[in-house]
Amino acid sequence: MGDIVAKRASYDKLFTSGKRRNVLYIPRRTVYIMRFTPEVSFTMSEAKENVLDPIVSLCKRRGFIYQSSEVYGGFAGFWDYGPMGCELKNNIKAAWWQHTVRLREDVAGLDASIIMHPAIWKASGHLDTFADPMCMCRACKKLMRADQAWDIFDESAIAEALAAFIADGRTDAGKVATWCKSRGKSLAPNLPAVAQAETRLPEIFEQIKLCGSARAVFELLASPEPRPCPYCGGGMTEPRPFNMMFKTIVGPIEDPANAAYLRPETAQAIFAQFQNILATSRQQVPFGVAQIGKSFRNEITPRNYTFRSREFEQMELEFFIKPDEAIELIHGKVITLADSPDLSGDPQPAWGWEVWHKYWVEQRKQWLVNVVGLPENSFVEYWQTAEELAHYARACVDIQYAFPFGVQELEGIAARSDFDLTQHQEHSKKPMEVFDEALKLACKPMDAMARDAFTQKVVADWTSRGKDAEKARAFVANLFEGKYIPHVIEPSAGVDRLALALLCNAYAEETVTDEKGNSEVRTVLRFSPKVAPIKVAVFPLVKNKPELYGRAREIFKQLQRRWNCFWDESGAIGRRYRRQDEVGTPFCVTVDFQTLDDGTVTLRGRDSMKQERISVDALVAKLDEALL
Amino acid sequence: MGDIVAKRASYDKLFTSGKRRNVLYIPRRTVYIMRFTPEVSFTMSEAKENVLDPIVSLCKRRGFIYQSSEVYGGFAGFWDYGPMGCELKNNIKAAWWQHTVRLREDVAGLDASIIMHPAIWKASGHLDTFADPMCMCRACKKLMRADQAWDIFDESAIAEALAAFIADGRTDAGKVATWCKSRGKSLAPNLPAVAQAETRLPEIFEQIKLCGSARAVFELLASPEPRPCPYCGGGMTEPRPFNMMFKTIVGPIEDPANAAYLRPETAQAIFAQFQNILATSRQQVPFGVAQIGKSFRNEITPRNYTFRSREFEQMELEFFIKPDEAIELIHGKVITLADSPDLSGDPQPAWGWEVWHKYWVEQRKQWLVNVVGLPENSFVEYWQTAEELAHYARACVDIQYAFPFGVQELEGIAARSDFDLTQHQEHSKKPMEVFDEALKLACKPMDAMARDAFTQKVVADWTSRGKDAEKARAFVANLFEGKYIPHVIEPSAGVDRLALALLCNAYAEETVTDEKGNSEVRTVLRFSPKVAPIKVAVFPLVKNKPELYGRAREIFKQLQRRWNCFWDESGAIGRRYRRQDEVGTPFCVTVDFQTLDDGTVTLRGRDSMKQERISVDALVAKLDEALL
Repeated sequence: MGDIVAKRASYDKLFTSGKRRNVLYIPRRTVYIMRFTPEVSFTMSEAKENVLDPIVSLCKRRGFIYQSSEVYGGFAGFWDYGPMGCELKNNIKAAWWQHTVRLREDVAGLDASIIMHPAIWKASGHLDTFADPMCMCRACKKLMRADQAWDIFDESAIAEALAAFIADGRTDAGKVATWCKSRGKSLAPNLPAVAQAETRLPEIFEQIKLCGSARAVFELLASPEPRPCPYCGGGMTEPRPFNMMFKTIVGPIEDPANAAYLRPETAQAIFAQFQNILATSRQQVPFGVAQIGKSFRNEITPRNYTFRSREFEQMELEFFIKPDEAIELIHGKVITLADSPDLSGDPQPAWGWEVWHKYWVEQRKQWLVNVVGLPENSFVEYWQTAEELAHYARACVDIQYAFPFGVQELEGIAARSDFDLTQHQEHSKKPMEVFDEALKLACKPMDAMARDAFTQKVVADWTSRGKDAEKARAFVANLFEGKYIPHVIEPSAGVDRLALALLCNAYAEETVTDEKGNSEVRTVLRFSPKVAPIKVAVFPLVKNKPELYGRAREIFKQLQRRWNCFWDESGAIGRRYRRQDEVGTPFCVTVDFQTLDDGTVTLRGRDSMKQERISVDALVAKLDEALL
Repeated sequence: MGDIVAKRASYDKLFTSGKRRNVLYIPRRTVYIMRFTPEVSFTMSEAKENVLDPIVSLCKRRGFIYQSSEVYGGFAGFWDYGPMGCELKNNIKAAWWQHTVRLREDVAGLDASIIMHPAIWKASGHLDTFADPMCMCRACKKLMRADQAWDIFDESAIAEALAAFIADGRTDAGKVATWCKSRGKSLAPNLPAVAQAETRLPEIFEQIKLCGSARAVFELLASPEPRPCPYCGGGMTEPRPFNMMFKTIVGPIEDPANAAYLRPETAQAIFAQFQNILATSRQQVPFGVAQIGKSFRNEITPRNYTFRSREFEQMELEFFIKPDEAIELIHGKVITLADSPDLSGDPQPAWGWEVWHKYWVEQRKQWLVNVVGLPENSFVEYWQTAEELAHYARACVDIQYAFPFGVQELEGIAARSDFDLTQHQEHSKKPMEVFDEALKLACKPMDAMARDAFTQKVVADWTSRGKDAEKARAFVANLFEGKYIPHVIEPSAGVDRLALALLCNAYAEETVTDEKGNSEVRTVLRFSPKVAPIKVAVFPLVKNKPELYGRAREIFKQLQRRWNCFWDESGAIGRRYRRQDEVGTPFCVTVDFQTLDDGTVTLRGRDSMKQERISVDALVAKLDEALL
């Protein structure tokens, strides 16, 4: 045990030095760490296999997730949700909609088309910059994503083998070279690269001595200059941008002028329809617009199960707020985080963007924990550094979950300033401004001197942030008229990756003892009741007693009106429990002979596995408590 | 009045002679007929303008439906649903899912990807035959859908003008010719066609005399041989098929080999995943698989508001049943409609396809009437004739709704035999058969003579229906082993067209008298509570009495936990009622001074406009009754 933990610590040190978004990581839950032998505990692919495989297998076996088009050999980057999976996804989406739209008065919904006018993607920047760097091998003509080309290289095998060398104190170049040669095929599909590595062994061992790290060796192997093709060792072209939007032609004429795109995010429709929604929903800034829907990205290398796929579903909120300068004019002072505002109560009119941003981070975390049941210690709140932020963004928080294949972004909460609406105003030539009565009134009594002082303050602030003084002046002049383009806070979540996180979090294998004292492994999905595909399963103890059976059917029908229920009449009760455990059903109700006598049933909880007798009359209220 | 009705009757006679799917029709609701002057009562575009315009206007004004990408000039064939529209659509989808999946034990859900392996569309036939006939003008190079090219021709203007001529007893060729010339531009964008019509006037007047119908003239104008280009009068190419699937490229390599398609229907994923779902859902034939999701068709001429758009949402069920021959072997006899089976009770094991098909027609009608509230007399159940049926289909019922722009298909219920699964079995080389224990057992005691007799009977039946004898023998041999490919009944509905039908059905303008005795027109959407975007609106009578206001907020928060609620505190109560009427909110609750005294509120119904006092404690139960 002690060894394992130590091993993990050093692994953490070694492997978290990578780029933030590609950090390799072992999930912190002891149940999985226990499974690693010391030798493989720091090889990620191995961990992935160990941890994700049983989940993938359960998902297939119990109808959560299938490969798209499986009978035709599958289709990379596309997945289908089976009977259990679509209930899980529906529950996630319904819970998000309920909390983000229906339970709030300051958020309106939108359901826009996936294919929109291509000018939207010009304005948003996607047409010009939503691209991955691609290179091609001049020899074998294979196309690869430049920054991922070497991912096919079997990192784990090399790391494992070299770690063994180091552990044994063996640093003899000749032996490593022989070993590389003999294991060449299993190391990678790219023998030439291994061969090349062989010629660079002195260099490699310098590194190994320096940091004692297999990772360093791998990085050397992975970044030769010039980098050869990982398949054939040939020379590669310079990386060129490849746009990730799926393109199609709308209308009958095959002409580039008729090109349109599948949306790569749902957010842009919200910006494009901002004025329509403002005019028709009786909302005023601050308010938000929420949308759930499919988005598409032509990922060059879709991977990590459903995590990075080419078709996925998003839940995005654009929450529009007043610019801080407008708040200052109206309220005299902008409330910032330094004022320690109470984020748990109702939002306040004088909150600045910083407080709104933090408010939404907290809202999203609370939803993850309290509604869909992701434990608070299972995710990390990562604040992007100034260098990582997009040029228009003021702040961005990634909520990262420790997936079996690494810590990855579950959702992001970005403060995007007025960038998007301004872009659409410029490109569509339609105003995206709002008129703010309170602002106009607040500015009315200001004399020329006050206006001048305010203008100079804003200009100084803007120019200190590298922004244009002329623009600052025009912005302030507009403010004095009561007009501005709202800023936006964007909490953006992925349905599929949240579903995957919930599956990973819920999955457990436990050794339990059955009634006869035999121990067995039970597989259980510990879903929060809110997202569980089935809420209640109803079992008649036996099926050959019409009275008992009929009573069970009555109870089933009664519960079915309110919740998604499952009827199971076959096999021993214990086996029926296990089937429900496997799909995460929180409650099972068994109707037996005693039911006919005293009107009670057995209610069995998934997690405690405890059974209690409860009267049928009290059943609905009891379940309601847990499920509402 | 009498005149108008007579006019309508003759209109019906004239205009219902067209092709079934393009029948022109005036809705039978008196409220709209009253608006037509005799002159325009038989011109469809006019009717469309009159009837659809206020609905389109309301939908825009109150946030039901916006043009996609409106700030960029819109994008033909794509629509966005605003805050009210997405609630309406969500409610429709949730009601369908609840009744089709969750309340049934014999249906499982699926949520498959929109982009699937292209082989699926080869197998389904869409790649080869899902096409519209297109022709191109050799002169101006415009592309048109051959069967709709002349739809741009302004039918109503010609019909109206010629009707005026006929009404005045004027049938003088010269005058019509002059008139045609002078009105040419306003008649159509196609002056050459009018000029051509001029040369054919003797022919045209023969027709007018014959049937007294402007339609006949229009039809003559619309079908010259060879048909000229409606834009420039040039010659047109022969119609060629244009595939309506949107094509894209998956992966980084722009190669036709990487072409994939946006699904033109959700159904095919269900067939492709049939074995996965069967294996993982504990279902046995008969059972169904349901799916809701977006589909895409590159319509050449999207039209009729949201009715025929390029991106739309479907709710499809594929209900798999045993072939009749298997039922006969198991049960000795197949129950057919001739046996007058009870379709309102539970499905019976010996039902044949005919009964299952009729059962689903009844289920769907009941859902339309009882759940989403479409009056039974507002739609027609149209049974396709033998000539109209697809070659593999045994029966198909269209449920047609009288839209303002004509009677159009709302949904279809097709008996598709084993066509789809067989196609996928052939193309994927993966078996789509099921093994049926009961069938195998039933066949076990059959001796050679009995098997021979049964085989001969099936062969005779199949060959009488033009099917292959060899295939019949193989099918029966398979049956004796307990194996078959299930047949399927497919109820397929469009979410958008149902939403539009519900909007058209719900829309009413009524003259009502306000408290002061003034009459005013109220616009109301009489939605069924189940689909209404907002269920309850809560109003504080005044907003400047903290106690009253606070009590109202409490009640609002309490109701909001259960239903989508709306808070409105501005304007006179009467105006607040009208705002809710316009979006179809069934209930309004007003909290006034009496509430503080006796704990009662005013509950006001949308349709009756009656107000009753009800205690806050009784409110939830009362609303629950109407809304559950």
